Amino acid sequence: MIKEMATKARIASRELASTSYHKRQEVLLAIAKSIESNLLEIVKTNSEDVARERGLGMNESLLDRLTLDESRVRAIAAATRKVATLSDPLGIVKISRKLENGLELKQVTVPFGVVGMIYEARPNVTVDAAVILLMSANAALLRGSSSARLTNSYLVDLMRKVIAEQGLNQDLIQLVPSEDRDSALELLKARGAVDLVIPRGSAALIRTVVDEALVPTIETGAGVCHIYFDAKADSEKAIPILLNAKTQRPSVCNAVETLLIHRSRKADLLPLALLQLQANKVRMNCDEECLAIAKTLGIDANLATNLNFQTEYGSLEINIVLVDDLDSAVEHIDHFGTKHTEAIITEDSDEAKRFVSMIDAAAVMINASTRFTDGEEMGFGAEIGISNQKLHARGPMGLEAMTTTTWIVSGNGQVRS
Amino acid sequence: MIKEMATKARIASRELASTSYHKRQEVLLAIAKSIESNLLEIVKTNSEDVARERGLGMNESLLDRLTLDESRVRAIAAATRKVATLSDPLGIVKISRKLENGLELKQVTVPFGVVGMIYEARPNVTVDAAVILLMSANAALLRGSSSARLTNSYLVDLMRKVIAEQGLNQDLIQLVPSEDRDSALELLKARGAVDLVIPRGSAALIRTVVDEALVPTIETGAGVCHIYFDAKADSEKAIPILLNAKTQRPSVCNAVETLLIHRSRKADLLPLALLQLQANKVRMNCDEECLAIAKTLGIDANLATNLNFQTEYGSLEINIVLVDDLDSAVEHIDHFGTKHTEAIITEDSDEAKRFVSMIDAAAVMINASTRFTDGEEMGFGAEIGISNQKLHARGPMGLEAMTTTTWIVSGNGQVRS
Repeated sequence: MIKEMATKARIASRELASTSYHKRQEVLLAIAKSIESNLLEIVKTNSEDVARERGLGMNESLLDRLTLDESRVRAIAAATRKVATLSDPLGIVKISRKLENGLELKQVTVPFGVVGMIYEARPNVTVDAAVILLMSANAALLRGSSSARLTNSYLVDLMRKVIAEQGLNQDLIQLVPSEDRDSALELLKARGAVDLVIPRGSAALIRTVVDEALVPTIETGAGVCHIYFDAKADSEKAIPILLNAKTQRPSVCNAVETLLIHRSRKADLLPLALLQLQANKVRMNCDEECLAIAKTLGIDANLATNLNFQTEYGSLEINIVLVDDLDSAVEHIDHFGTKHTEAIITEDSDEAKRFVSMIDAAAVMINASTRFTDGEEMGFGAEIGISNQKLHARGPMGLEAMTTTTWIVSGNGQVRS
Repeated sequence: MIKEMATKARIASRELASTSYHKRQEVLLAIAKSIESNLLEIVKTNSEDVARERGLGMNESLLDRLTLDESRVRAIAAATRKVATLSDPLGIVKISRKLENGLELKQVTVPFGVVGMIYEARPNVTVDAAVILLMSANAALLRGSSSARLTNSYLVDLMRKVIAEQGLNQDLIQLVPSEDRDSALELLKARGAVDLVIPRGSAALIRTVVDEALVPTIETGAGVCHIYFDAKADSEKAIPILLNAKTQRPSVCNAVETLLIHRSRKADLLPLALLQLQANKVRMNCDEECLAIAKTLGIDANLATNLNFQTEYGSLEINIVLVDDLDSAVEHIDHFGTKHTEAIITEDSDEAKRFVSMIDAAAVMINASTRFTDGEEMGFGAEIGISNQKLHARGPMGLEAMTTTTWIVSGNGQVRS
């Protein structure tokens, strides 16, 4: 089934690649408009998914992710309009050379072709991903969660209808049936037919994708991020950054999970951090030394285990560890981190530099919140996911990450000697 | 075993990443010098590998690949010196932005860290790959063929000795024992410990690597390349390009395997091609129509099968097919090609553009030989392989393809609102 869908998708993506940037913009604006015109219908359809899943016992946090209310639908339309304003990711000349023998070489960006997405509850991904892929002239095979099947189906039908009205091939966007568990596996094995699969969701989902895939994939998301308070950390910066990174939106991958503190700041910065975290209702798992100090402050904390250090909480929970120096901090990060985002808070620019040079991660923050590792914040205007791998794209992926390149070599009969 | 090697390699690559470009250049020049000083010893060691494999019945073509004579050793040293002259691939600022909130963002190139190579007979890859990885501050885990074990071991010892003399960590270059078949599999499963594995060799090797790998890989090499003689092909360009692409070095991946000819050129260009290929001792597999014409010319050709169309001959053999038009040519290429290099020979610039827009390949040649898809020719100065995939790098990979990026974000206390 996937092979047939992919074959139709490839034909559609070829056609789209030869349309103009302006045409792609028009399609996106028409999608945004149609989403707004059908706002109530979308909310109603979604409420059926939500009601069914509530009946089946889905927890509140997942139900919240599944839910589309009016304002969330409007946000999807607004995001679509924003993608339409981004500059064309195709045809960008990365390298241009003229060789001595007269050959003209150009390396230009082109679409991947057929891109699969495998994602969990959140139905906004259905539109967010589809419009980024449309704008980069890729065809999308969308494999959402069965819990969102009515919503996803409605949104895909809506987009396909707009695409047809715009005179383009509907197969640019296809929904892979989520009722069939094997459909995700089939997508992952469709080597040659599918150019790329991007998983978005839990660490377990991503691990399955990486293990099973025969098609190229981009690993996204898992974020066990750290903040290190250096000996010369400014507490006026350190505490607000810590609180922002932990509490502003704890469910996302760029939230912080472990705080490392230079032992010399045991008497001032550590108690400050403990008290502020407590005031913000953050559960704390501390090493023995921190735990003793927490107790003297009347704070109820637990002893941290290695399991804590490797957990992405996604909630108001944090680990706190005292370290001897920057090198020990880096060692801890190396051992437990997921190479996503690591931050140092320090007024010592040499130590900051040393931290940057030793950390192996998609992003390193100096005196800034880990929450800034984000496509919007970093100026991409949109984001299809945050790559956690070193190949192809690292960190937030915008439109251009959805392109590959080709060499166009023009000659007048040149042969190699 | 691989995990231990990789752990040592990671430490060594970290140390190297903090050394200067100049230091890395010095190491490479010292390696080149040492190779030349030990030229006779290298040739002698290699001759033991060759003698043993000849005794075991290795065929002449593979024996040739295995052999290092004096001129080949000198060429390895020269290639090493050339890599030393290339500009630094590290620390290149790809994106630099200052946000409204004052945050300074930089996306800069950094090494992958630990890179594995799995390759077959040719022992020159041992040095070629190692020096490209050294120059990009990656540590190399080299898993060559057991047929070249004495040569590879000698070359790795030589490089390690030079590295130690230069005051650096020898674990930058390690030879993975080829006697142990499982060592390659272990390398491919070492997720987290190894950042990237690049296979170089037969299609079968590459397929195994892609199927088995849990670490990121870059698929290289398989090349079923086509040349299409368009209705408006200039025979003065077409025939020399065809002969160059097929006969100059038939064993390489950018050699041509199938010639497609517009039916309108059945009476002039086709017979010319058949006669010239015959004169150059190229075996021909033709479709029925071509076969009939070949017979009228007294040329002994075979009827081409689908198996022929998907074979990378690596020898003086070619398929010849008449097509109705450019679209049929593209359809054939789509069906049988490996997305490596495809060429059109035409004086019609509109048809050339149409061909470029429809072909999905690493390189598209207009009136030039397919043989130009090559790191040296394209101006990279060196090549660690030709990527056949769309992710990360497509086509010849030079020094910069051996880097990833990191975001460095500098602030003064910014938090996300």
